[in-house]
Amino acid sequence: MLWTPRSAAQTRILDAALELIVEHGVSGTSLQMIADAIGVTKAAVYHQFKTKEAIVIALTERELGQLEDALEAAEAEGSPVRAREVLLTRVIEMAVARRRAASTLQFDPVVVRLLAQHQPFQQFIDRLYAALLGGGSGTTARVHAAMLSGVISVAVMHPLVADIDDDTLRTELLQTMRRIVALPA
Amino acid sequence: MLWTPRSAAQTRILDAALELIVEHGVSGTSLQMIADAIGVTKAAVYHQFKTKEAIVIALTERELGQLEDALEAAEAEGSPVRAREVLLTRVIEMAVARRRAASTLQFDPVVVRLLAQHQPFQQFIDRLYAALLGGGSGTTARVHAAMLSGVISVAVMHPLVADIDDDTLRTELLQTMRRIVALPA
Repeated sequence: MLWTPRSAAQTRILDAALELIVEHGVSGTSLQMIADAIGVTKAAVYHQFKTKEAIVIALTERELGQLEDALEAAEAEGSPVRAREVLLTRVIEMAVARRRAASTLQFDPVVVRLLAQHQPFQQFIDRLYAALLGGGSGTTARVHAAMLSGVISVAVMHPLVADIDDDTLRTELLQTMRRIVALPA
Repeated sequence: MLWTPRSAAQTRILDAALELIVEHGVSGTSLQMIADAIGVTKAAVYHQFKTKEAIVIALTERELGQLEDALEAAEAEGSPVRAREVLLTRVIEMAVARRRAASTLQFDPVVVRLLAQHQPFQQFIDRLYAALLGGGSGTTARVHAAMLSGVISVAVMHPLVADIDDDTLRTELLQTMRRIVALPA
């Protein structure tokens, strides 16, 4: 279980931190900026999280934690192909509902480094990839899985779809995703 | 024409800056770090570029400049559908050859803000989008164009494809891209 329960004070800090990171990147966000954003002292932030890195780990944990339900539902399916379908459907729903924030975090070089170093994250990501591969392991399956990741994380926040409503965007994305993986290549 | 010719000294600075930004993000990279990386004084960097923002604009200009040839070749095609095909083929080639650097720059919040504010970049991006849309303008065309952007920028640097060789990756990506846009939805 990746998700650590957070107090109201911690949640407020994490929400403010995510908003600042979306605008300035991890490196451009300081504990002081987070404190200012929620109108508390830096000491109050420090009392909850000792370092910015701890905040970034908590944020990443929270993002991945939201994927965990989807992943468990997928893994409970009998066939790998059906598992991938369930995962994609759920993840697209989440990505569309949130659009911008998740992607920014995901591409920040500081977050990428943390993800690679933090063992529980790596194990979770291995499970995600396994589900995304839909039972395949060859070159084509890996390229498809990489494309699905790209589609989910980038397409939802693309300027070209900014004024498409959530329902329509979800339907269109899912339809095209199915087209990526459904046909033999 | 977006691309400003650069001196050898400027090119050295831009190369070092891009490498540092890939690792630390724009906010986490300073003129001093760039100076240290190439073994010159901060004053020597300052002599070429007055601010970090000027370096980021120059880097973005250079990245987009590399797309310009591809875009011009695409625009020279008779049909929008054929134009999109030419653009995708050329852009995938470039993205695969470089894999990591371009995407990092593209998702940095500081770069995103600069792109939105810098008029010549906006005009160029409008041309790119027009070519990506392949003559369409409705919801499906926009979702497809957003997905193609996502695929190009993210799939090429995904861990799952890290050990697939360039030729194979290029072929597989192009094949699946064609599947995204070729069929009516």
